[in-house]
Amino acid sequence: MSPEEFRAAGHEVVDWIADYLRDIRDLPVLPDVQPGALVDALPAAGPEKGESMDAILADFRNLIVPGITHWNHPRFFAYFSISASGPGILGEMLAAALNVNHMLWKTSPAATELEQVTLGWLRQWLGLPDDFFGIIHDTASTGSLHAILAARDLAAPDAHRTGKHPELVLYASEHAHSSIDRGALAAGIGLDNIRHVPSDDEFRMRPDALAAMIEADLAAGRKPFCVVATAGTTSTTSIDPVAEIGEIARRHKLWFHVDAAYAGSAALLEEHRHILDGAAQADSLVVNPHKWLFTPVDLSVLFTRRKDVMRRMLSLEEAPPYLQAPEQDRAVNLSEYSLALGRRFRSLKLWFVLRYFGREGIIRILRGHMEMAQHLAQSISADPRFEVAAPVLFSLVCFRYLGSDQDNRDLLERINSSGRAFLSGTTLHGKFVLRLAIGNVATTGDDVRQTWEWIRSSAIPATGSPAAEPLRPL
Amino acid sequence: MSPEEFRAAGHEVVDWIADYLRDIRDLPVLPDVQPGALVDALPAAGPEKGESMDAILADFRNLIVPGITHWNHPRFFAYFSISASGPGILGEMLAAALNVNHMLWKTSPAATELEQVTLGWLRQWLGLPDDFFGIIHDTASTGSLHAILAARDLAAPDAHRTGKHPELVLYASEHAHSSIDRGALAAGIGLDNIRHVPSDDEFRMRPDALAAMIEADLAAGRKPFCVVATAGTTSTTSIDPVAEIGEIARRHKLWFHVDAAYAGSAALLEEHRHILDGAAQADSLVVNPHKWLFTPVDLSVLFTRRKDVMRRMLSLEEAPPYLQAPEQDRAVNLSEYSLALGRRFRSLKLWFVLRYFGREGIIRILRGHMEMAQHLAQSISADPRFEVAAPVLFSLVCFRYLGSDQDNRDLLERINSSGRAFLSGTTLHGKFVLRLAIGNVATTGDDVRQTWEWIRSSAIPATGSPAAEPLRPL
Repeated sequence: MSPEEFRAAGHEVVDWIADYLRDIRDLPVLPDVQPGALVDALPAAGPEKGESMDAILADFRNLIVPGITHWNHPRFFAYFSISASGPGILGEMLAAALNVNHMLWKTSPAATELEQVTLGWLRQWLGLPDDFFGIIHDTASTGSLHAILAARDLAAPDAHRTGKHPELVLYASEHAHSSIDRGALAAGIGLDNIRHVPSDDEFRMRPDALAAMIEADLAAGRKPFCVVATAGTTSTTSIDPVAEIGEIARRHKLWFHVDAAYAGSAALLEEHRHILDGAAQADSLVVNPHKWLFTPVDLSVLFTRRKDVMRRMLSLEEAPPYLQAPEQDRAVNLSEYSLALGRRFRSLKLWFVLRYFGREGIIRILRGHMEMAQHLAQSISADPRFEVAAPVLFSLVCFRYLGSDQDNRDLLERINSSGRAFLSGTTLHGKFVLRLAIGNVATTGDDVRQTWEWIRSSAIPATGSPAAEPLRPL
Repeated sequence: MSPEEFRAAGHEVVDWIADYLRDIRDLPVLPDVQPGALVDALPAAGPEKGESMDAILADFRNLIVPGITHWNHPRFFAYFSISASGPGILGEMLAAALNVNHMLWKTSPAATELEQVTLGWLRQWLGLPDDFFGIIHDTASTGSLHAILAARDLAAPDAHRTGKHPELVLYASEHAHSSIDRGALAAGIGLDNIRHVPSDDEFRMRPDALAAMIEADLAAGRKPFCVVATAGTTSTTSIDPVAEIGEIARRHKLWFHVDAAYAGSAALLEEHRHILDGAAQADSLVVNPHKWLFTPVDLSVLFTRRKDVMRRMLSLEEAPPYLQAPEQDRAVNLSEYSLALGRRFRSLKLWFVLRYFGREGIIRILRGHMEMAQHLAQSISADPRFEVAAPVLFSLVCFRYLGSDQDNRDLLERINSSGRAFLSGTTLHGKFVLRLAIGNVATTGDDVRQTWEWIRSSAIPATGSPAAEPLRPL
């Protein structure tokens, strides 16, 4: 493709994106498609001859977009709501064109150093200690896997050579993210040795239960090696007592990992800074700018005080010839700290986002999301047919219709199948509840209010009045 | 950022990218910067207030670009040469705007199914069997890690629950990529149990040596579990005898993984199809469209015949509430097969690339790269001061100046520091050699000829004539 052909098609794509961002509320958040629809619509074999960009872009608009779940929609309230903000998209465009692989400092000095600079800014804004080394991974799953591998290495350093591990045990709250369990599985920790520590009534890990479990494992001759605290659990955004848990980990000399993938961003706000109290003592901490910091997927940050262990655990007897590069003063070869050798230029979009919004701008948006969540919770509490199902700490509201689980599942299905909004569900205290997560940079108070009206009007009336009308699809 | 502000900045960025692609030969491939230069040039703390996109883009041009190693430069010949082709960049732009996380089918049906469709096309073009299931990972490191974990699971299925593994042993050629060793380390295989099988004079794994090593380990009571063959080694692109190695693996019931990250693409050409002979019997195979298939980083494909094992090895006792989704007929939840839960929409760029170029177009470009490599090898052979140091099988030429290792290192340094081209080095048969890897979609025969002229003119004369002039920097 010639540069001029790229220019023409690129302008067309930018116009499509700008229109998409402008008109996105006209699109159903969840598509109305059946499994296999796109497979059937596309040729079973790739084209022999090249096709025009016009034809490809037409198929993109006509075949792909109708099957997309619009994570960038302001009424995407499921899981955690995320954003491809304008500056983030621009950063990705430039990163794609540069196509850097900064596995070593010399394979792109600016990409290596921009990662260190932007993560330094973020570290300061979150109130984390200066000696935390930051590195970007694709997802929190990968960052947490590296933390668990480092914990394993520290607990059983000989295994790097011998492969022989004692019976290692990992601890996380019953509300910890499933990626912790999967990271432990990958590290060779069997399901039997992954402890799910019970939580209190507000879904926070119970330090007393953690301490008791560690004692029991020690008594049984097993070797505790890693404790994971969650700052912002997936179901309810509850915050484990990080400082207390860290104290227990330190007492037993266990690696202490903090999963702040979602709620870590909230520590930018003075009034929420305390959620990371104790995190300064952590050995590692994950926070995801691609969750609640307006940065397109994927970009997850792993901070660690134990850079040395991260490096050692992946080190071979001798670096292969193609990777021999001295780590000079002030230069760092980032691939020495990650399983993935290739490193695309992810920090560029984060740098664009942090600069475009600035700290004050980011705080204003996050605070706005939290205010929308509080208003929604008030509306829910004011309706006798509903109840708020968990403390609203940040921008997630868990709630339920005062009926059966099936009533709540039906309600969720009615909202989601209308295409007007997308919520998800979870189970709390044995009951199915709805989750409305606010986090998209373009979401307004009206989006939330309107969605609440749709939910109210779609709920089966509590008494014998006629069933609610199905919500008219978009 | 309003849609209209995005539109204006987006057009500006597209023009910059088009100019960049047009004028890229005017830029030094390797930047002339010292460690810390960008760290010093940027503020130590992030901005309090938001900044204009104009200011941010100006800093991008003035501070970032001069510190970039230009992997997209047609004279980037180091490691393996890669391409952000026009259609690939356009695909990334749209993927960034959609910002999809297709962890489940329903969280983006079109993204899930387009991945299956494009990988089906690729599978057919490479001549791989229909029952190979394909999934996209970020890098070959990650794909190979999943293969090794699956091998471990199959060899010791109880360990999923108990964490107790027998003493497992993995085999790969001494020329296998370091990511195999690091994947094995992550899986808990100690360095002592990673076997580097000797290779023959042309850098191909010796099946007899492999068989002997397996027998010795069995006799010692250890448990062989995984054999990795490489189709296209990093140092020389040598091809291990895949079929013979596969036969040995099958005889001992070991997982057989093929690392075809680079050379797999060559199997699109009828005359090179044979390099994957025997791969149909593999349990898993990695090929990287972000290497030699004009697709921007990152996009690596893992094919496997053992989808069941890939899923089981990551499965928990119960899926968490936020991930409960039936795998319906013809729907697949891709995150069940990868450690990273989040999945960005990578297949879009690959679909754009495969369609824009078509099979014939891709073959034409790959064949062109191989012809350039053959011409270069002829030129090198015709110069009595140089020798070709390994068979030129595809688009990589390994060669050396007939002097000391230091002479060759100096020569490499002179070329690279000139900014005119970027080559890398490796060690073969105990001697340092230069590697010139052709693979960028915009590289021309003139780029290669011109680079060879610079190399010739920069080489220290063989006899007592005056030292070569330093190559004038760009």
